[in-house]
Amino acid sequence: MSPHPLIVHINKHVHLTEAQVATVLSHFQLQTFAKKEHLIQEGNICKNLFFVSKGCLRLYFMNEKGQEQTIQFALETWWMTDLMAFEKSGESGFSIQALEKVEVMAITNESLEKLLCEVPQLERYFRKVYQRAYSASLLRVKYLYTMSKDIFYEHFASLYPEFVQRIPQKVLASFLGFSPEYLSELRKKKTVEKK
Amino acid sequence: MSPHPLIVHINKHVHLTEAQVATVLSHFQLQTFAKKEHLIQEGNICKNLFFVSKGCLRLYFMNEKGQEQTIQFALETWWMTDLMAFEKSGESGFSIQALEKVEVMAITNESLEKLLCEVPQLERYFRKVYQRAYSASLLRVKYLYTMSKDIFYEHFASLYPEFVQRIPQKVLASFLGFSPEYLSELRKKKTVEKK
Repeated sequence: MSPHPLIVHINKHVHLTEAQVATVLSHFQLQTFAKKEHLIQEGNICKNLFFVSKGCLRLYFMNEKGQEQTIQFALETWWMTDLMAFEKSGESGFSIQALEKVEVMAITNESLEKLLCEVPQLERYFRKVYQRAYSASLLRVKYLYTMSKDIFYEHFASLYPEFVQRIPQKVLASFLGFSPEYLSELRKKKTVEKK
Repeated sequence: MSPHPLIVHINKHVHLTEAQVATVLSHFQLQTFAKKEHLIQEGNICKNLFFVSKGCLRLYFMNEKGQEQTIQFALETWWMTDLMAFEKSGESGFSIQALEKVEVMAITNESLEKLLCEVPQLERYFRKVYQRAYSASLLRVKYLYTMSKDIFYEHFASLYPEFVQRIPQKVLASFLGFSPEYLSELRKKKTVEKK
């Protein structure tokens, strides 16, 4: 049997013994969600941190105009939660929704703390996960301040070409701060330029 | 002799032996900078990660209008660098400048990797540092998308009242996306409301 994607991902950064693999897996719960189903609803207690084994998630909040504002996506091997709410078992400031049929490994904060004591090598793994997430977010803030929307789209599409095809146009437009119509125009323009 | 602020901060999260404290300190270099001096210049190789022992730093970049856009501050016990450039020893996409006379502990990426092998407990410490930084940045992105500037200022001033007094108004205005004049008006208004 091939190892679970979570174990494959951890093993890229730290080596786990077979016993440790079993310990890790024992703390997680496999959960599946249908397309459009919610993993977390804004305002509810944020109980879980999710590792995406299959499919794609988005993180969004309701803005003051009552529109859903997507600010993050998670593909296979990415982690997602409202981290601040998760740590405090507080109310989530975001919703997390499945964009496709999704399979995740879910862990509670209590289980994670236990697991980090039992398998301290995971500190290194999560240090790397958060370090990468934080360094990307610094760049993200820079883009939010400075980049024109067209350039942000180009940048995003060149980094994640497959992804841009996978997610609904409406959701991608919200993430980029476009109207869906504008995004559609932009994509047509880019396709013509490529020919 | 009282322990260095870096050791005090690490000891809040993990326990170090005396020998480990010595190892930690041996990997860092104490550096001091005068007010307005640069620790990193945008476009130069990003060699160091900084822990602020005394004073205050800002991280900024030059936007397309040729204006300095501040996107982050670091007070005592905060860490600062262009993390992505630091990891790759690449060109920094940001400048880091001292807002006051500053004392930092600087470490290169190579030294940090060595140190993490020699004192593996630090993985936990840095996991916590990055986790906190990442969870704060998620909230930051939400604010950038949604909050009115006045509310962002209020929020920021209530979280860091002492800090708002400490930093130059011009720099704070840039961070908040205000003109310095608007910020001055807003502060007068808030002072009047409090009376």
